[in-house]
Amino acid sequence: MKRALIAALLITAAPAAAQQSVASLPPPAIADPQIAALRDDAVANDHYAWDIVEGLTTEVGQRLAATDAEARARDWAVKRLTAMGFANVHVEPFTMPVWTRGAESAEIVSPFPQKLAIAALGYSGSTGPNGITGQIVYFPSVDALRAAPDAEVGGKIVFIDHNMQPAQDGSGYGQFGAPRRQGPTIASLKGAIGIVIRSIGTDHHRNPHTGVQYFTDGAKSIPAGALTVPDAEQLVRILKRGRPVTMHLTLVSEKHEGGKSGNVIAEVPGRDPKAPILLVGGHLDSWDLATGAIDDASGIAITTAAAKHIMDAGRPRRTIRIVWFGAEEPGGFGGNAYAKAHGKESYAIAGESDFGADRIWRFSSQLLKSDPAAYAQLAASLAPLGITKNDKGDADGTDVDPTIQAGAPWVSLNQDGTRYFDYHHTPDDTLDKIDPVQLRQNVAAWTAMLASLSGGIESGAKQPKRR
Amino acid sequence: MKRALIAALLITAAPAAAQQSVASLPPPAIADPQIAALRDDAVANDHYAWDIVEGLTTEVGQRLAATDAEARARDWAVKRLTAMGFANVHVEPFTMPVWTRGAESAEIVSPFPQKLAIAALGYSGSTGPNGITGQIVYFPSVDALRAAPDAEVGGKIVFIDHNMQPAQDGSGYGQFGAPRRQGPTIASLKGAIGIVIRSIGTDHHRNPHTGVQYFTDGAKSIPAGALTVPDAEQLVRILKRGRPVTMHLTLVSEKHEGGKSGNVIAEVPGRDPKAPILLVGGHLDSWDLATGAIDDASGIAITTAAAKHIMDAGRPRRTIRIVWFGAEEPGGFGGNAYAKAHGKESYAIAGESDFGADRIWRFSSQLLKSDPAAYAQLAASLAPLGITKNDKGDADGTDVDPTIQAGAPWVSLNQDGTRYFDYHHTPDDTLDKIDPVQLRQNVAAWTAMLASLSGGIESGAKQPKRR
Repeated sequence: MKRALIAALLITAAPAAAQQSVASLPPPAIADPQIAALRDDAVANDHYAWDIVEGLTTEVGQRLAATDAEARARDWAVKRLTAMGFANVHVEPFTMPVWTRGAESAEIVSPFPQKLAIAALGYSGSTGPNGITGQIVYFPSVDALRAAPDAEVGGKIVFIDHNMQPAQDGSGYGQFGAPRRQGPTIASLKGAIGIVIRSIGTDHHRNPHTGVQYFTDGAKSIPAGALTVPDAEQLVRILKRGRPVTMHLTLVSEKHEGGKSGNVIAEVPGRDPKAPILLVGGHLDSWDLATGAIDDASGIAITTAAAKHIMDAGRPRRTIRIVWFGAEEPGGFGGNAYAKAHGKESYAIAGESDFGADRIWRFSSQLLKSDPAAYAQLAASLAPLGITKNDKGDADGTDVDPTIQAGAPWVSLNQDGTRYFDYHHTPDDTLDKIDPVQLRQNVAAWTAMLASLSGGIESGAKQPKRR
Repeated sequence: MKRALIAALLITAAPAAAQQSVASLPPPAIADPQIAALRDDAVANDHYAWDIVEGLTTEVGQRLAATDAEARARDWAVKRLTAMGFANVHVEPFTMPVWTRGAESAEIVSPFPQKLAIAALGYSGSTGPNGITGQIVYFPSVDALRAAPDAEVGGKIVFIDHNMQPAQDGSGYGQFGAPRRQGPTIASLKGAIGIVIRSIGTDHHRNPHTGVQYFTDGAKSIPAGALTVPDAEQLVRILKRGRPVTMHLTLVSEKHEGGKSGNVIAEVPGRDPKAPILLVGGHLDSWDLATGAIDDASGIAITTAAAKHIMDAGRPRRTIRIVWFGAEEPGGFGGNAYAKAHGKESYAIAGESDFGADRIWRFSSQLLKSDPAAYAQLAASLAPLGITKNDKGDADGTDVDPTIQAGAPWVSLNQDGTRYFDYHHTPDDTLDKIDPVQLRQNVAAWTAMLASLSGGIESGAKQPKRR
């Protein structure tokens, strides 16, 4: 079936290709044999990534930004990166406002008394231990809430529904994430005493999806939580009975300034210290509900494993810098701190892995325009892994974005996000969600990308292979 | 592929059939056209079952045995069964010990501090609000715990692991359920201060599977909980690091005697009041973690919808009695109370639906021996729904078992249990897990069974169709 489809496509494509002059075609790119060998070894044999993701999630567990758990994660990171043989392993600290979760519950008081499963959103206001009680006012979208008169919302608990569905490129997260990102502020400005949203997720499990939001435009902080998808659907069914619905909501949390976080940095030093750097990484912190296996232990594991494969092979011309960014979840604090300190350095490329551990299905890069030969070589190196090029792609990633804004060229290796929002920011983001075969495909892709842009790996300077 | 397989099977089977004399073959059974029409109408059009399961789970929610919630469920049941036009709708009350859940948490204190997700098992002892702290001692099975010297267990928190996998017939629940059913008693008798088990489930979500256990053989009550499958796997990984593992366990619960529950009973009166009764039903109570959609709102919905289809068609010779049993989960209290009051009555058949809402794939019945013609007719009526006969099947079902023990002939309509233990006794047992198409197939099968054994439905006496 697949073969038949490909044959059909080739036949269809043939006349158009024939009309194009040979001179206007890009030079044919064939993957460099050294790159192919490194890639193929990684896809078959990598264990570095699994060891990191298994180790970090088991020995540290959840690592909420600016908490003791994240500090333990930094200690673990320094120890592991040093043991793996990387150079210049160090922590660059920064401070930030820290928010922590307390007791949480949501209960329908009337007409049908029952508990619903809920989690507070980041930087939610606190109800205090006794909670608040209010009538639910329903909106099918943020826009519907925005259009509502204040009198309809004042003194009530807003409920925003939506219908997010899975997408390979994760594109629903922008539009359907609005209830979480903007809902609390709009509800607060209209006088609501609290807000609950349908989780920004695509699953049907009783696990709420947390995530960050900020009160902006002078909105005062109010309690804001996410019901699980089944609980949101239950609330919709209850509301459809047409009687007033009253909820008792308890979302206890604390916020204070001066929390301590930091980025953990390590390098594979290049032969040419003046050559622009290859910057890769992911984020070390996680939400507090789970061990953050796919968000984002896998990202730091994949990029670090790839750098390790280059280091095992020899010495690249360019320095590879790995950053395990701190405090991404509450708003990209690590990425901003990094760019403030290092944004003006010279980069050959900047890329991050922060979309799970399922297979990479396509890539895009600024090199398409700035260095078409390098882009073609990269495409040829990635194609055997089933990765297609996306000439319309954009830069992607909270942590490297400020550095890209400061001038670094970007590369995006896009993971298949079909099931990503089943687990994202929920208690279900645990090690068992990672498929080791797909994880290795990720490592192979990043290895091929680093090898392809390394400026050449000199195998004489090879370092001893060690874990 | 399927057709080719069937053709191959027919060819293979042909010689054996040819060797058998025609006289020894059972009489060919062809489904009665009236039965077939009722069945086909139900599979295409039934809405009674969905209305019941949607209504009960939405308007009552969880309904833990002998609590106010279960009492609200009985009120709901009487109202709904009366509105549907059934006769003799009434509640038969009984008393029982009631157990209720309080605060619950499990935390690894050392070597890697982190929270694990847990739920207490039914009739667990209470740790009190301050919890208990102890070293974990690991066993891969109940048998391994049984074989351990008391000194290895005394003063510690036992952890029992296992490897339950999905099975269509749910057969793993017997063997792999032992850690829950027997583990707490054995651990207690050996001097453990508490016990945690890997949930008796086949999913990988952070939702614990509760379920009942009793302390027998003079064992004193100790705290007993189920970790989710991902958390149990996490604990195994932590233990594999080889360092002592300490857990702080909080499982608060209350137990008291004299709780009130009851069975809700309704009938379709038969034309012949002396004819043996057709007894069908499911259980009204649920565990407290979810709305009990598949366990067992769907069971009462399916059997009640089937009885309603018979009633809509006319008046059967035999009386159909529907029982919505109370308090099944904590130990079949409703089934025992029913048999005590009604076990000596005369039954044509007794059957219950209590294994979810996925399609019925096979059936078995005592009629195979006691009334082969009725069995053949039943097989012919069910076959168009894809239901095969199982000549080796047994009686099945906690609630009708005491009545079967008292002499009632049994029928079992077996649902596909492949995904049943993904949700069983967890917070995830919610309406969205029910597939309306498969639910209708269930209703059609029970309708065909009731029609087949009804003794004939006289359509002149048809009642008005109403919800």
